[in-house]
Amino acid sequence: MAVNLKPAEGLLPVAGIRLGVAQAGIKYAGRDDLLIMEAAPGSTAAAVFTRNAFCAAPVTLARLHLGHAEPRYLLVNSGNANAGNGLQGLADARRTCHALAERAGCAAEAVLPFSTGVIGMPLPVERMEKALPAALAGLSEDGWPPAARAIMTTDTLPKGLSLQRAIGGEGITVTGIAKGAGMIRPDMATMLAFLATDAKVSRPVLQRCLEDAVARSFNRITVDGDTSTNDACVLVATGQSTVAALERPAGEAYAALSSAVSEVCTHLAQAVVRDAEGATKFITVTVEGGASEAECLAVAYSVAHSPLVKTAFFASDPNWGRILAAVGRAGLEGLDIGRIRIALGDVVIVDSGGRSGTYTEAQGRAVMGEAEIHIRISLGRGEASATVWTSDLSYEYVRINAEYRT
Amino acid sequence: MAVNLKPAEGLLPVAGIRLGVAQAGIKYAGRDDLLIMEAAPGSTAAAVFTRNAFCAAPVTLARLHLGHAEPRYLLVNSGNANAGNGLQGLADARRTCHALAERAGCAAEAVLPFSTGVIGMPLPVERMEKALPAALAGLSEDGWPPAARAIMTTDTLPKGLSLQRAIGGEGITVTGIAKGAGMIRPDMATMLAFLATDAKVSRPVLQRCLEDAVARSFNRITVDGDTSTNDACVLVATGQSTVAALERPAGEAYAALSSAVSEVCTHLAQAVVRDAEGATKFITVTVEGGASEAECLAVAYSVAHSPLVKTAFFASDPNWGRILAAVGRAGLEGLDIGRIRIALGDVVIVDSGGRSGTYTEAQGRAVMGEAEIHIRISLGRGEASATVWTSDLSYEYVRINAEYRT
Repeated sequence: MAVNLKPAEGLLPVAGIRLGVAQAGIKYAGRDDLLIMEAAPGSTAAAVFTRNAFCAAPVTLARLHLGHAEPRYLLVNSGNANAGNGLQGLADARRTCHALAERAGCAAEAVLPFSTGVIGMPLPVERMEKALPAALAGLSEDGWPPAARAIMTTDTLPKGLSLQRAIGGEGITVTGIAKGAGMIRPDMATMLAFLATDAKVSRPVLQRCLEDAVARSFNRITVDGDTSTNDACVLVATGQSTVAALERPAGEAYAALSSAVSEVCTHLAQAVVRDAEGATKFITVTVEGGASEAECLAVAYSVAHSPLVKTAFFASDPNWGRILAAVGRAGLEGLDIGRIRIALGDVVIVDSGGRSGTYTEAQGRAVMGEAEIHIRISLGRGEASATVWTSDLSYEYVRINAEYRT
Repeated sequence: MAVNLKPAEGLLPVAGIRLGVAQAGIKYAGRDDLLIMEAAPGSTAAAVFTRNAFCAAPVTLARLHLGHAEPRYLLVNSGNANAGNGLQGLADARRTCHALAERAGCAAEAVLPFSTGVIGMPLPVERMEKALPAALAGLSEDGWPPAARAIMTTDTLPKGLSLQRAIGGEGITVTGIAKGAGMIRPDMATMLAFLATDAKVSRPVLQRCLEDAVARSFNRITVDGDTSTNDACVLVATGQSTVAALERPAGEAYAALSSAVSEVCTHLAQAVVRDAEGATKFITVTVEGGASEAECLAVAYSVAHSPLVKTAFFASDPNWGRILAAVGRAGLEGLDIGRIRIALGDVVIVDSGGRSGTYTEAQGRAVMGEAEIHIRISLGRGEASATVWTSDLSYEYVRINAEYRT
């Protein structure tokens, strides 16, 4: 059901990064569900995590470990979120880190754990431990494509992108992978996304680079408004390119890295929406003419979260009244309906407080029939703007989420 | 699909109130879609309206008229919301009020207009005008049951309740009707609800009585989180009972009236949820042990709005991890997962930060199989509590809202 999304292709190796996968049988049979991502010594890492108060055990532990050491290994499993498991969940996550550290010959704090899948089921630690040797034996710089598949849950396609940038005659590579596809309304990060670059970047600069990129990518998407307990996004810099070290977040070299990281994050974030559970439409909501970015976002999310707007998109029904109602309930003080302008693609549907004089139902139907739809809402009270991406609400979304565990 | 909801029965006349309906052919054929509710001279009225910034033309006009005169007539149509219609919408609403006022021999300001249905379609004023004589000719104190049916849109059953209370040996009656069934997350009022009593009550006291009742009834329900442009709730007091006039919001007489109005409002609000679009479950979410009522409500709505929680209820799947995640993303500072307790009915599913030791999946499945489910969430950090009511998210919700206009 993915909307204009191709499986990740042409993922480029990043010098200093090796990836290996294995079948641990955590929830799925006959597919990889465990990933080890290895970063060469001397790498730096930046990360952002969910703001859900009940973050999963691996999120708690990854945060802790990041405070103690530069990570050497990311250990990722799909099929089980290890969330809502109390102290046992924390002990289980710790045990998997120790098991990998022992085999790999590093400190346990140099392993960051990540889990995605069902909440509230005990993590099958022994099955994961048994799968570690195979994943380690398979470590390879060309491991990005199977890695993108191993982290999938209800995703229908693997998601990834590589970009290369020239900096002062030398080149750097940025490669990233991500998974969706439900419980998506990231708040500082998405479900799981892993990026790496061979640029040499100090940790504070890398963190700033990642946070800037995430703010305008993963933090601008919503499928169902449900912020997950497990969201995490990690960017590793191996420093193995010939480009000089980046020590401050400014200048041409930083701009080149930052734009590449942003572009990869935006591609991955949009890919998560294109592959959203049951999606048949990819919807871009742009709100402009606001007094602040915050109020533009409030309006954009009010529209993007509305089940009535989302079912109308599923039905290709230009029921613009639902969009207008969603704008009106966004909580903005003193909003003047007389200044509102709403367009679907190039078709203006609302101006001067009501249906545009030039609008015809046939125009609306034609735009709504497209798989990619751009809603542009102008508030007419300022210069700020914001864009978010979302999907429609279909029978398939209900089916997937009514049947997910069973 | 309504959940344990019977059609309104035993609706009692209220002295001084007459109701008449007619077929105006606004959107539906072969059914009543226009209602006139007449209040005898000397009646007082209280009202609450939607907080959607883009309130419909009839809401704007009803607010205006209430400021100028005590209402004599409520004029209600279903099938067209007269929202998003700009200045023409306001002119159309005004014209229907004038038409009724002329025929009834009262000031236009004594007519309050109400509309519910599709947003953004011109109000068919002429068809409504033509239907006025039939509705006026049919005015009757026994008109409550057909009135409850005439205001329905996607509702499957009419909703109403009558209560009687003794005050100092005399009796008063409170009768109310309401309609749902989508775009329901009232904020000060529901889609449309009309109540009347024969008690004699000053307008400020009546307004206080209504606001108190609405705060704990219509403002505690959600179907899809979409606050409508047309929400309105009106309470008329005709003063035709033999009970002495109520001039202040205190004392035994006020308590009797207030409790009756609250009970009718709660019944109607719950009836709206029971008849929510596509509902197969009626879900009560109680949050207790909070530091304030506001934070209890934030948690309750986070759970009640979660599409993932709602699809799990539809599937009768005790996927409590989704409830836990929704509590965690409610935005409460310093929430301690170790103190959270979540129960489904009498079954404790979460305590001490994870799945309860006494919980079994079979217990969860049994509770989730019921048509009425009570989620109780204890935050363990205070004395405040709050309850909201909601429904599940089914295929039928998607079907109804994908097909509503077409």
